[in-house]
Amino acid sequence: MEYRIEKDTMGEVKVPANVYWGAQTQRSIENFKIAQDINKMPKEIIAAFAYLKKAAALANLDAGVLDEEKAKLIGVVCDEILENKHTDQFPLVVWQTGSGTQSNMNCNEVIAYRAHVLKGGELSDVKKFVHPNDDVNKSQSSNDTFPTAMHIAAYKMLMEVTLPGIEKLRDTLAAKSKEFMHVVKIGRTHFMDATPLTVGQEFSGYVSQLNHGLKAIKNTLEHLSELALGGTAVGTGINTPDGYSENVAKHIADLTGLPFVTAENKFEALAAHDAIVEAHGALKTVAVSMMKIGNDIRMLSSGPRSGIGEIYIPDNEPGSSIMPGKVNPTQCEAMTMAAAQILGNDVAINIGGSNGHFELNVFKPMMIYNFLHSARLIGDVCVSFNDKCAVGIEPLRENIKKHVDNSLMLVTALNTKIGYYKAAEIAQTAHKNGSTLKETAIALGYLTAEEFDAWVKPEEMVGKI
Amino acid sequence: MEYRIEKDTMGEVKVPANVYWGAQTQRSIENFKIAQDINKMPKEIIAAFAYLKKAAALANLDAGVLDEEKAKLIGVVCDEILENKHTDQFPLVVWQTGSGTQSNMNCNEVIAYRAHVLKGGELSDVKKFVHPNDDVNKSQSSNDTFPTAMHIAAYKMLMEVTLPGIEKLRDTLAAKSKEFMHVVKIGRTHFMDATPLTVGQEFSGYVSQLNHGLKAIKNTLEHLSELALGGTAVGTGINTPDGYSENVAKHIADLTGLPFVTAENKFEALAAHDAIVEAHGALKTVAVSMMKIGNDIRMLSSGPRSGIGEIYIPDNEPGSSIMPGKVNPTQCEAMTMAAAQILGNDVAINIGGSNGHFELNVFKPMMIYNFLHSARLIGDVCVSFNDKCAVGIEPLRENIKKHVDNSLMLVTALNTKIGYYKAAEIAQTAHKNGSTLKETAIALGYLTAEEFDAWVKPEEMVGKI
Amino acid sequence: MEYRIEKDTMGEVKVPANVYWGAQTQRSIENFKIAQDINKMPKEIIAAFAYLKKAAALANLDAGVLDEEKAKLIGVVCDEILENKHTDQFPLVVWQTGSGTQSNMNCNEVIAYRAHVLKGGELSDVKKFVHPNDDVNKSQSSNDTFPTAMHIAAYKMLMEVTLPGIEKLRDTLAAKSKEFMHVVKIGRTHFMDATPLTVGQEFSGYVSQLNHGLKAIKNTLEHLSELALGGTAVGTGINTPDGYSENVAKHIADLTGLPFVTAENKFEALAAHDAIVEAHGALKTVAVSMMKIGNDIRMLSSGPRSGIGEIYIPDNEPGSSIMPGKVNPTQCEAMTMAAAQILGNDVAINIGGSNGHFELNVFKPMMIYNFLHSARLIGDVCVSFNDKCAVGIEPLRENIKKHVDNSLMLVTALNTKIGYYKAAEIAQTAHKNGSTLKETAIALGYLTAEEFDAWVKPEEMVGKI
Amino acid sequence: MEYRIEKDTMGEVKVPANVYWGAQTQRSIENFKIAQDINKMPKEIIAAFAYLKKAAALANLDAGVLDEEKAKLIGVVCDEILENKHTDQFPLVVWQTGSGTQSNMNCNEVIAYRAHVLKGGELSDVKKFVHPNDDVNKSQSSNDTFPTAMHIAAYKMLMEVTLPGIEKLRDTLAAKSKEFMHVVKIGRTHFMDATPLTVGQEFSGYVSQLNHGLKAIKNTLEHLSELALGGTAVGTGINTPDGYSENVAKHIADLTGLPFVTAENKFEALAAHDAIVEAHGALKTVAVSMMKIGNDIRMLSSGPRSGIGEIYIPDNEPGSSIMPGKVNPTQCEAMTMAAAQILGNDVAINIGGSNGHFELNVFKPMMIYNFLHSARLIGDVCVSFNDKCAVGIEPLRENIKKHVDNSLMLVTALNTKIGYYKAAEIAQTAHKNGSTLKETAIALGYLTAEEFDAWVKPEEMVGKI
Repeated sequence: MEYRIEKDTMGEVKVPANVYWGAQTQRSIENFKIAQDINKMPKEIIAAFAYLKKAAALANLDAGVLDEEKAKLIGVVCDEILENKHTDQFPLVVWQTGSGTQSNMNCNEVIAYRAHVLKGGELSDVKKFVHPNDDVNKSQSSNDTFPTAMHIAAYKMLMEVTLPGIEKLRDTLAAKSKEFMHVVKIGRTHFMDATPLTVGQEFSGYVSQLNHGLKAIKNTLEHLSELALGGTAVGTGINTPDGYSENVAKHIADLTGLPFVTAENKFEALAAHDAIVEAHGALKTVAVSMMKIGNDIRMLSSGPRSGIGEIYIPDNEPGSSIMPGKVNPTQCEAMTMAAAQILGNDVAINIGGSNGHFELNVFKPMMIYNFLHSARLIGDVCVSFNDKCAVGIEPLRENIKKHVDNSLMLVTALNTKIGYYKAAEIAQTAHKNGSTLKETAIALGYLTAEEFDAWVKPEEMVGKI
Repeated sequence: MEYRIEKDTMGEVKVPANVYWGAQTQRSIENFKIAQDINKMPKEIIAAFAYLKKAAALANLDAGVLDEEKAKLIGVVCDEILENKHTDQFPLVVWQTGSGTQSNMNCNEVIAYRAHVLKGGELSDVKKFVHPNDDVNKSQSSNDTFPTAMHIAAYKMLMEVTLPGIEKLRDTLAAKSKEFMHVVKIGRTHFMDATPLTVGQEFSGYVSQLNHGLKAIKNTLEHLSELALGGTAVGTGINTPDGYSENVAKHIADLTGLPFVTAENKFEALAAHDAIVEAHGALKTVAVSMMKIGNDIRMLSSGPRSGIGEIYIPDNEPGSSIMPGKVNPTQCEAMTMAAAQILGNDVAINIGGSNGHFELNVFKPMMIYNFLHSARLIGDVCVSFNDKCAVGIEPLRENIKKHVDNSLMLVTALNTKIGYYKAAEIAQTAHKNGSTLKETAIALGYLTAEEFDAWVKPEEMVGKI
Repeated sequence: MEYRIEKDTMGEVKVPANVYWGAQTQRSIENFKIAQDINKMPKEIIAAFAYLKKAAALANLDAGVLDEEKAKLIGVVCDEILENKHTDQFPLVVWQTGSGTQSNMNCNEVIAYRAHVLKGGELSDVKKFVHPNDDVNKSQSSNDTFPTAMHIAAYKMLMEVTLPGIEKLRDTLAAKSKEFMHVVKIGRTHFMDATPLTVGQEFSGYVSQLNHGLKAIKNTLEHLSELALGGTAVGTGINTPDGYSENVAKHIADLTGLPFVTAENKFEALAAHDAIVEAHGALKTVAVSMMKIGNDIRMLSSGPRSGIGEIYIPDNEPGSSIMPGKVNPTQCEAMTMAAAQILGNDVAINIGGSNGHFELNVFKPMMIYNFLHSARLIGDVCVSFNDKCAVGIEPLRENIKKHVDNSLMLVTALNTKIGYYKAAEIAQTAHKNGSTLKETAIALGYLTAEEFDAWVKPEEMVGKI
Repeated sequence: MEYRIEKDTMGEVKVPANVYWGAQTQRSIENFKIAQDINKMPKEIIAAFAYLKKAAALANLDAGVLDEEKAKLIGVVCDEILENKHTDQFPLVVWQTGSGTQSNMNCNEVIAYRAHVLKGGELSDVKKFVHPNDDVNKSQSSNDTFPTAMHIAAYKMLMEVTLPGIEKLRDTLAAKSKEFMHVVKIGRTHFMDATPLTVGQEFSGYVSQLNHGLKAIKNTLEHLSELALGGTAVGTGINTPDGYSENVAKHIADLTGLPFVTAENKFEALAAHDAIVEAHGALKTVAVSMMKIGNDIRMLSSGPRSGIGEIYIPDNEPGSSIMPGKVNPTQCEAMTMAAAQILGNDVAINIGGSNGHFELNVFKPMMIYNFLHSARLIGDVCVSFNDKCAVGIEPLRENIKKHVDNSLMLVTALNTKIGYYKAAEIAQTAHKNGSTLKETAIALGYLTAEEFDAWVKPEEMVGKI
């Protein structure tokens, strides 16, 4: 490979001749040979940096501390990055400095050097027209840019992937709930037969969980909308022009179309990432819901002959490499595996979030890596589960009816007629003898056949619908 | 010990002669010999049951399904329970049935039998005036009472212990922040010397964390305010009178003074505890903040001679059984240990919350045990840390000044004057030579003594205050 | 209440007149008002301190640094503590100093002052015959005594409660496995019908899990057997006589009957608790097994009419306060709740273990509190589950047979005869038509009735037994 | 793109014309559009499948159920896979069926179709010479192959990356410990000044932690060495020839050079992954050690002027984009971030491991994804930390000496001379007055200057070295 020489404050570094990055990016590649093939800095962070670098250039221009030509060039390169024209220029991994300094410098270098080339220069020029630190990073520090990029990336992912994914699944389940609202089935508590409800009622619980989950996520957006930018090195805003913090947040809000504001307290914004911890707390709540829903659908569809067997879910693929004709609830499996992952990611985020010291938390890349992973998984899994499973769910009415008709727990309807103790005696006797409730109730002399038929009606035991 | 015989639907049980509980409580004692000395059902759950059993009696009276004398007696016993007159009547543990049925029955039995005694009966009477199931539990099921008790207990603890505790600490830290707002100190990022800020600014970050934490908790109260009561066995509300759900929630709201409402969806309310998961997600966010704050105070007060040594914290006790005169940051240690516990509790709650099946989650006692533990710990630890540590914090001005004056990172003020690269050279050279920035800057010929004094002023590097 | 005045190096403290504890214990009560009613320092730690204080007195006597009368008196009080004669003298909580210094001093004070009384003195005497620091704590520091107490308490609990509990359950399941080794049942993979196995084979998997779990725990005992005692303040053993470390470990081994040795490296033993982290890693593995086993038994016993219904488990109590005659798998619920708790405790321990600094980890009380909680829960829950559930498990042969006979997955036996694709076609067609495999196989012309009968024999599909 | 038509038991599927995979792989791509760009099935699993498919072919050949030509062809393709010649033929992701069936089929298809091409056939041929199910998957099921691949991949990663990485760092720290064994420094407990020890002693604690961690990992290898292969669909070994399990394990052991054996109990091996849970329990113990070591090094090297400043670590890169000349402990940050990740991964694994049902755990891909991630991170991070940080650590002797000389905790040496209380008074007085211990001791009249010099010698307070 051919190389050129780049310099930073520590000296010279050999860099591949034709890449836009410079000395500090190259040092990071060489200093952090940690899972380089699998843990690249998430592309959403790179995109977030493009927004913020452009916004910073505009705010610097507004403040009169950056000249127009440079500001424009920076903006052009940022747009190119957002159009995915430079995806191979960001080779760094999550496991680098905990402030994300090297990814900030990667962005600074790529933007500066690409701008220099756009201006007509050569990568091999010792002096570039745009300087990574003095121009692209002007009025910034890694310490305020990286957390700003974290919030931009997190907020965007929630809005574009996570929330729409949950909503899509919620809508399908709501439609199914409505459709099956009068299909009376046996309830199950403690995994044991209980009083009846309808399939639609059961599904309405899932809808309610997802609705609460959506609300929980939305409750955390306000904290996420606060941007650290303008705090620079330690939160004091050293080396920033007047009014810069508010203005740069406004530019970011304009560019992203999202309601970002400058953080009221920049010291928190650099030193802690409670906003990420809090928002992921909402994501893990949704993961908990996903585990419940995935398990229920898995179990309700179990069988085909020796399980619960009350709903049909689509057959998407052969289920077994050895058992011919087997079909499995694979979308439930993907969903519950993702839920487990998110609950693990939550712990990683908690540990990272709790270990900041003084003016800076240095678990930033790890925290946002896990956050984006979870947010993405929820969105993708909800869509996959929706499209390949939920939309095709149908009740298996024959099985459902058989289960209701056999149920001993219909006896609960008699509590208010003959009292809990006699009702219990009927159920226990029927269970012991393998007989029906009706036969047993009459045999025990507690009520007549007519009374039984009048009082024990599954369809009247499901409440108002 | 003397015994009497009590009966339930499974037969006779020997019960200590003079206790108010009955057969089912006794069975649970014998069936669940699990950590009985250390994991009693939290007393807050018993109190919550007292509220709800009284409210249910009132709602049943309103609906005309319970006669007034019984309703009144039930209410009287509930009031006695709330006055802690029967603390020894609730012997059951967390590790019982996952629906909390046995604690519900413990309450039903104690209330019924105590009511019978108040009415003039004897515990040894075979037939009691008030029946545990048919009267005290009327229009209820364990499946809706226990989750209702969970929400009552959780909400009350948050309002009475957790939020006030955090607020108390927040207020003290805010006062300290204001008081120390002009004490310029060295900043630290990556645990390394950085540009200056003031002690007050640093503390304002803690205040902001706690303020966001308070908001995060409050955001979750709405979900917690939803009560399952009225859902009975599976969420359909079987065996409840018309309008009962809304009315009983209203009675609970009246009795507790808290804004409880009936849950819109009872199926979720029994089958899932996402409200608990979500609310604990906010608590764990506060735990993350506590860990950060506790660590910072621990480290800032370290020394007395070979540490950071920038703040004084009160000496509360001898610190060592072997090192005479040693004083330690013990309140920080209690706070950070509690934070670790809460982060562990969070995982237990997540696992419990994710493992509900069909119409019922059966990890209820474990979940609320952990929730109340965390909520209590936060409240108590914040008060203890406040009273025994935060109120006494003082800056150690001499050390602070020495650190600022020595700092190489004051060079950052020169970035906008001479550029990042030359500034770096000054800092690196000074570091290598053990010289001051000023000497070095002049020696390198980058600026004059006058310029240095004019440009490098720590007190002007901390931004607007 | 009446008080007496006690003194420590910080001055005078009012102490209840008739308690054996002194100034430092009293300070801790007043300084740490955190969950005092629910989180007492575990009694197993107090007992462990009794062993180690007696052993230290003996080792000090051996070394000639403590006189015989004092050594003897200390030993007598330690024996009294081990006989539970002073349970109300240890009022401190987990949330104290992170080194457990105050519990060490609580023990030192109680032992010294009780010894003084045994010697004929009065609690109100200003000078006591035995001194908490200079005699009871001789050649010790909190920093080496508390971790030693942690290892003693943990090891003893594992040996006395945890391992025997698991073994008891393992033995029962092994007996059931053997008993049911020829009861052919349907297998289930992905919760879907699969090829057959026997109930005994299924249970043998649980036995194998528990056997591996026992082995995993035992693998961690060696690290736990290493004692910190002799490291004193920072691991260097300052203020200890020659040969003390080895000798005191030997005395502890003698007194407890367990193979304790002095830790090869005392610096680790104070500064880190990887032995606790590692051993709890084995406990969480067992918790994972418990969750699997508890879930399987819960599901296999589900019904009675609309579930899987393949095993009977004992009815221990009425299962519902509203549904008469309902019986629930409550032991499974206690077991799986405990498993969730242990998985949460694991995270608390990890966080505590990872946050030691320099020469001391200060999450000690929290870590051992969680460890002992988990170890106790596993032991107790296994015994409870064993006695109240596992011993009574019986296969429900009628249901089991019905499920096997109906199964479509018996078709797997044909793979090696007619190939996977044709076998799949038979299963899929039978499923679609609701017909039997045999009918379908013949109708499709792939084999004769005789061939089917010869090739498809569930009892020959379960391998060698 | 051009396509060909492939078929499976569910019908026809369009597959890119020139790929080796077939219908089931293609279905999975389309059915699981979940994080496809970031969560590919780990390449180590594909390699493990290559070993096991070759071994299975050999065992089938030995048993006479597969002809030699096919067996040989299968082996050739497996070797090609191990030589990374087909990396683009394995497009599936972690979030698929929880048994990993689709990745098993991906391997079966690629091996079969590539073998067909090697034999001279065309991908477009309807009938291939080698059949994915009937030949490549012969005597196998996803249910036993995937867990076998999990163990092969996990074991290999531990042996090749994790253990050597830890050992490398351990060796460097051991060398540093020896080198600095006589550099007396102040100890710190509770982050506060304590009695002295040497830098070498401090580092020996890290070495001991890593040694215990290595042992902990090795303790888990035996469970990991057990292979599920031969259990096929549910653990009974249906459709396998006699002696196959033992023979195929032997072939795998031969091919990998690792001591694999057939699992004694195949039911556990399919239904649970306690071996993975247990082994990751050891990995998380190492992560806890890494967090401690990383934090200590970070803090010991803090400064350069206002921190602890007792060791030098190499400057690898400019530390700040805004603060010129700043250098940060970035390797510590990468290490502690990785530790946090591993502690999160542990929870994901626990949840997956605990949620198996009946004969199969269906969280397999998620579990091994997290396991391999952790195992890789530990290995890579230890090497990176070693090469870029640990090897360059040097004590800063001037600072170290200053700290020791100033320390008040040297007073501890006087405990055995004048008693704990008088010693405490000296320390407290010196602290209050800012005076030295010696001055204060003499002023208080407790000892002479000569006695002080004779008794208080830091170099004699560090014990035997």
